[in-house]
Amino acid sequence: MSDEKWTKEMTAEEEQTAEAAEQPETPETDWEQEAAKWKAQAEENQNKMLRAMADMDNLRRRVRKEQEDLAKYASLKIVEELLPVLDNFERALAADRESMTVESLLTGVDMVYRQMVQVFEKEGLQAIEAKGQPFDPHIHQAVMQTQDPDFDSGVVVEELQKGYQFKDRVIRPSMVKVNE
Amino acid sequence: MSDEKWTKEMTAEEEQTAEAAEQPETPETDWEQEAAKWKAQAEENQNKMLRAMADMDNLRRRVRKEQEDLAKYASLKIVEELLPVLDNFERALAADRESMTVESLLTGVDMVYRQMVQVFEKEGLQAIEAKGQPFDPHIHQAVMQTQDPDFDSGVVVEELQKGYQFKDRVIRPSMVKVNE
Repeated sequence: MSDEKWTKEMTAEEEQTAEAAEQPETPETDWEQEAAKWKAQAEENQNKMLRAMADMDNLRRRVRKEQEDLAKYASLKIVEELLPVLDNFERALAADRESMTVESLLTGVDMVYRQMVQVFEKEGLQAIEAKGQPFDPHIHQAVMQTQDPDFDSGVVVEELQKGYQFKDRVIRPSMVKVNE
Repeated sequence: MSDEKWTKEMTAEEEQTAEAAEQPETPETDWEQEAAKWKAQAEENQNKMLRAMADMDNLRRRVRKEQEDLAKYASLKIVEELLPVLDNFERALAADRESMTVESLLTGVDMVYRQMVQVFEKEGLQAIEAKGQPFDPHIHQAVMQTQDPDFDSGVVVEELQKGYQFKDRVIRPSMVKVNE
């Protein structure tokens, strides 16, 4: 909105400037009138500049407020999505201990785990592939070396800790054992 | 930086404007010179305005980019903090099933649960108090009514689903049974 207005006013002004420049400076020129005209123009331009600067200050203030809010509530969405995981966790832990078996408990906990992983994946988390992959220092961290004839040289033989990417960023490299 | 520069230039300009205004308009005034001066001033002010507008466009572009990044990586921090929870979850599920008991499994799962709640609380999640509290429509949602002589009228008798606040925002009201 504000931008459009500026653009329109600028165009009108530029035309005026162009007209003034084309006008031949003959002795008949009324310089007093000319001076008044340019003085008015100078003041108008100054006012416009002041308004542009005020707009910029307002934009800065608004942006600062917006960014503070974005930072404050950054985690809100994923926490909200993880509430059902918390609920199910509590349900699994609150189940009747008399009728619980290792199997029933494992089944419940595994469901909660999968639900949590699903929310994470939806947000952009991806486990990094490691075992059997060529060692890549961007996503793997070699913490051990080995000589295993079953694997090619430079290949990850074992994953010691799972690594993760969040969207295009590696947030934790896989800790791996690499074949020499 | 840019602001300070503008401020300095503005002050110089305002002085100039003030001087010009004070100058008495006697017949000796060289109006041609006066016109040239004001024309130069008009052009200078216009250039300053154009620069202010260009600065504003740059700010807008930069801010848009920054906000896109903030939104894209909003969940990164909490996901990163929850990785150890995922690890422990996996460890609990991968433990040797032969030696597992309901008790050992519950202990492990309870630890993972507490760890997860701790990360959430650090981020700003708080469970809403319900049972025994006076019913508050801002944080409680009444889904059942009862007549229980052990509770005062208008008090929450039972919490059917836990409610949560994230910082100052209620993200899920408690579902409660209220005493009539």
